[in-house]
This record gives sequence, structure tokens and C-alpha cells, in this order.
Amino acid sequence: MPALRVGVPSEELAEDLAAHAGERPVDVTVWVVGDPPPATPFDILVLTYMIPAPELRRLPAGVARVLQGQSLGYDGVADNLGPGFVYCNAVEVHEASTAELAVGLMIADRRGFPTFFDAGGRGEWAHGPQPGLAGSQVLLLGVGGVGEQVRRRLEAFEVDLVRAARRPRADEHGWVHGIDRLDALLAEADIVVLAVPLDGSTRGMVSTDFLAQMKDGALLVNVARGPVVDTAALVEAVRDGRIRAALDVTDPEPLPPDHPLWSAPTVTITPHIGGFTGAMRWRMRRVLLRQIDLLLAGSDPEDVVVRT
Amino acid sequence: MPALRVGVPSEELAEDLAAHAGERPVDVTVWVVGDPPPATPFDILVLTYMIPAPELRRLPAGVARVLQGQSLGYDGVADNLGPGFVYCNAVEVHEASTAELAVGLMIADRRGFPTFFDAGGRGEWAHGPQPGLAGSQVLLLGVGGVGEQVRRRLEAFEVDLVRAARRPRADEHGWVHGIDRLDALLAEADIVVLAVPLDGSTRGMVSTDFLAQMKDGALLVNVARGPVVDTAALVEAVRDGRIRAALDVTDPEPLPPDHPLWSAPTVTITPHIGGFTGAMRWRMRRVLLRQIDLLLAGSDPEDVVVRT
Repeated sequence: MPALRVGVPSEELAEDLAAHAGERPVDVTVWVVGDPPPATPFDILVLTYMIPAPELRRLPAGVARVLQGQSLGYDGVADNLGPGFVYCNAVEVHEASTAELAVGLMIADRRGFPTFFDAGGRGEWAHGPQPGLAGSQVLLLGVGGVGEQVRRRLEAFEVDLVRAARRPRADEHGWVHGIDRLDALLAEADIVVLAVPLDGSTRGMVSTDFLAQMKDGALLVNVARGPVVDTAALVEAVRDGRIRAALDVTDPEPLPPDHPLWSAPTVTITPHIGGFTGAMRWRMRRVLLRQIDLLLAGSDPEDVVVRT
Repeated sequence: MPALRVGVPSEELAEDLAAHAGERPVDVTVWVVGDPPPATPFDILVLTYMIPAPELRRLPAGVARVLQGQSLGYDGVADNLGPGFVYCNAVEVHEASTAELAVGLMIADRRGFPTFFDAGGRGEWAHGPQPGLAGSQVLLLGVGGVGEQVRRRLEAFEVDLVRAARRPRADEHGWVHGIDRLDALLAEADIVVLAVPLDGSTRGMVSTDFLAQMKDGALLVNVARGPVVDTAALVEAVRDGRIRAALDVTDPEPLPPDHPLWSAPTVTITPHIGGFTGAMRWRMRRVLLRQIDLLLAGSDPEDVVVRT
């Protein structure tokens, strides 16, 4: 059996794959966008983590049979790939970590961590009550991979969880409201969690109107994609502290040093680290080994989300 | 039926109780330590939240049939109460909030919140990987009220949870190790959570030896009581960053402004707010109404932990 040609974007990944591929016939090469085209096309080319979508324009035609991304989201991929590519997203790599972060951001805000850490930096014991997460109504927008993992983690926290997605339906965990009822749902929520993909229907979804419908003091958590929120509208809504926000993703990204969101007192920001944990390496390796096994078996790869 | 005489430490509590007592025959008075003794003893006297135990020495003899504390812990109560008192602790008031905080502190540290919030204050997008909570081994010391709530909340977070308590035993959630095996358990844990009561056997339990047995980079979470940790030993262990700590309780409390724990880079501190959330009021009210109903029915109060 001829060895499967796998391109990976770093020495570290090459070594990790070599160490775990066992007896699979694979030929692993480090290759990144900008390198000279390989003599023989790759069977699978793993892309750099968080590669900006416009960089995909620089992929040589026919460089690989299958492009394997390292992200769950694939906004911008279809628009920037030349013809003849098959692109797979990374499923079950980032969902758990992103959900863990979302719950962490909720607790951090509802328990006053930013305030207490800040006071602590000045040696101040700032004892005082905080709202807490238990007893809060949490509106979860999106019930896909990340949304489901958020739901599971919140189960033991005594919150009133309300879920919404594009179309209303019942699933094994209860009712999922349609996004058309958003006005009524926003008016009741203490915490709104964004876990939707970025596409034409969700871009700018969190608008001036959306924010105006949120309760005073309610918290917006974004672990989806920055452009789901209209940044100018959010800057306006947090200016007087009426709305709170915990953002792992922003628009633009990275957020420039002088951006008003950095200094807004009711906003906390983590730098797009939703999926970026020690668990990422083995989870990504698991995806890659599964794709390798499928191709070695003569099957199609899993999780093809874009074909050009 | 003569009205039950209830003393409470604030107008706010008096109003809340009056608003929720319904048709129960109760006579509610605001009374705090230092006020003149009441003409008629109280049937129940609710103590100020977080009253320092030595203040209990100032309670007039016979001021109340039943003293109702607002904390779960009652270290120091027996030593400071005069003779003839019955003291009840507050059960199911703080456990859920404290466990929520413990999980929040774990996620905050394992996802780098203190670092990211700090960088954010300087307008810095400090993107970089962090270990994460999933995949960590968590050693939970104490399986009582708070410990059990921590266990429940961690269930969905993909951690390897190891529990230990005074005596080894099996319960419905698996095996509980005996504290005599602590050496071996500490050597494996990424995170050690303290959820034990403070008593003669746990005071100073986290000693120089205990900390030396912890792995490099492991995290100590204290949501129990400050003196469970030997502060001098902890200061030494975090000096070079070998040990990380997330502390809601410290010894002394409040921590003085110039204390070295404030400035240790691997230490985060919240100012003893484990149970101090918006949920505390209704949970405390629930305890109080239950005690009132028991006394009105001629029964003994619940959760008597000290009789002098």
C-alpha cells in the first residue's frame, strides 16, 4: 500500500503524528502556505490553526486532495478557496473547550472576578455580594456542537436555561425556541450566550435593537465569532454600563490596543482562546487519524463542509 | 397561639421575613450584638452574617432559645458561646454558591483569566494556549455539602475526579479515598480543591509537606476556611510560581494590603464571597421559615451543631 502523503503546518504536529500513527503507512511533511508546491500533491493537508481565510487564496491549485482545517467555524473558506478543493472542518476538537470557557466567563462575571482581581492587584479585600450564576435565566442561542456542550455543563448549576435556534423544535432536552421569538426571550434573560455559526443570517445579529431588548445589567457572552455582534452597537450599549459583556471573540481581531471595548468597565475579554487548550493537540490528532484511516480504506473524508 | 419572637440583624432581613412569613404568627425585631437585652427572650435569634466568633461572647445570657447562624462553618462557635445556648448552622444556603465559585476559580486559572484580564487592561490581545480544565485530574478533599455540590458541577467537564475524606468508603458516586493516602493522591493531581470543615484535624492540613507533594504547576483551590492552609508554607510554595493557588478564604482575613499573597503572580484571590450571592437571601429565608415552622409545631430546630 503506498504511503498516504500528509502535510502538516509545524514540526511539533509532524512529531506528534509520527509518534501516534502506529503502523499506518503515512509520509508526513511540514508544509505551510508560501512554501514551494510539493512535487506530489498531499492526500491530506492540515492548515495552520486560525489561518486567516484570505490566506487560502495562496494555496497552489491541486496542492492536496483534502484540506483539513483546525477550526470548527469555516466562515470565509468558500469565498477564498480556488476551484477543485475539498475542505473539512475540525469537529469535536474545540466544542468542549469553548463551552468550558463560556461557563467560566459566565461565572467570572456573575461572581465579580474582574472586580476582585483588580482590587487584589491593589491589595484590596473588596468583600461584597455579587449576583451569582445560580437562579439566573440563561438564553443560549445555538444548539449545535458548542451549544450542546454549554447546555450539558450548565445542567448542574441551577440556572433556568432557555434555548433558541433557527427553527423551533423539541429535542431530547426540551424545547428549542425559534429565533423569531427572540424579542420576548431577550427581555427575560440575565445572560445571553452566542453559540451560533457565522453566516449571512447571523452576521450582525447582535444589533442595537437586540441589545436594547436585553435587560439592564444582563450579560452577553460571545464564544461564537466576532462579527455576530455589531461592535459599534455593543460599544454604545456598554458605554454607560447598562449591558455587560464577556467576549472571547471580537470584530476586528485582534482587538487594537486603543479599542474602546478594552476600557469598558462592564466588559471582559479573552483573546479568542475558546478552543486553545492543552486538550486541543490530542483532539486534533484524533480527527486527523480518523481522516487518515478513512482515506487509507478508500473512503471519503468526514466533515466536508466546503467543496469548490 | 402566641407569636414566635424572632430577632434578625437587619431591617432588610426583617422586611424580607415579614413579606414572606404569610399567616405564621411571628413577631420580628431587629437586634444585633451590643443592643440592650430584649425584655422577653427571642425564640430564634438570627446572627449577623460572618460575625467573628469572639463577638458571640457578648451575647447576653438567655437572649434566645435558638441561635441561627448564617454560615455553614461553625469553627470557634463552641469556644465562644456562654452556657445554655443552642446554635444551628445554615445548611443548603451556601453550598451551591461556594461550589459554583470553586468551579469558576478552577476554570479561571486553567484558562488564564487573570493573565488575559491583566493584559486586557493594557489593551493587549495576549493570544496563547492554556491548559484548560478538561482532561485535568481534580482531587476533591471533603465530600460533605460543598464537596458534593462541586462533584455534581464537575460531572460534565470531562475531568478525572478523585475524592478523599477522613475515612475511605464507597458511596453512590464511586470510591472515596481515605485521607491517609493523601501523599499518593497529591502527587497525581492537577487541581486540589479544599472543601473540608475547619477543625482540629484540618487546621494547617495544607502544610509545607502537603505542598511539596503537589505536582509542579498544580493548582490549590481553597473554598473551605483560611486556616486549613498554613499561610507561611503557601507563601513559600508560590514564591517561585511552582504552585498555583485560587483562594476565596485566607488566614488572616481580610488579608492585609501588604500581604505577599496579593502580589504572588500564580495566586488569585476572591474576598470570601463563596456564599455571598443574590441567591443567599432566599436560601437563608427558606432555612429560617423551616425553623419557625418547627418551633411553631413544638418540635426541635434542625441543624443544631453546638449546645453549650
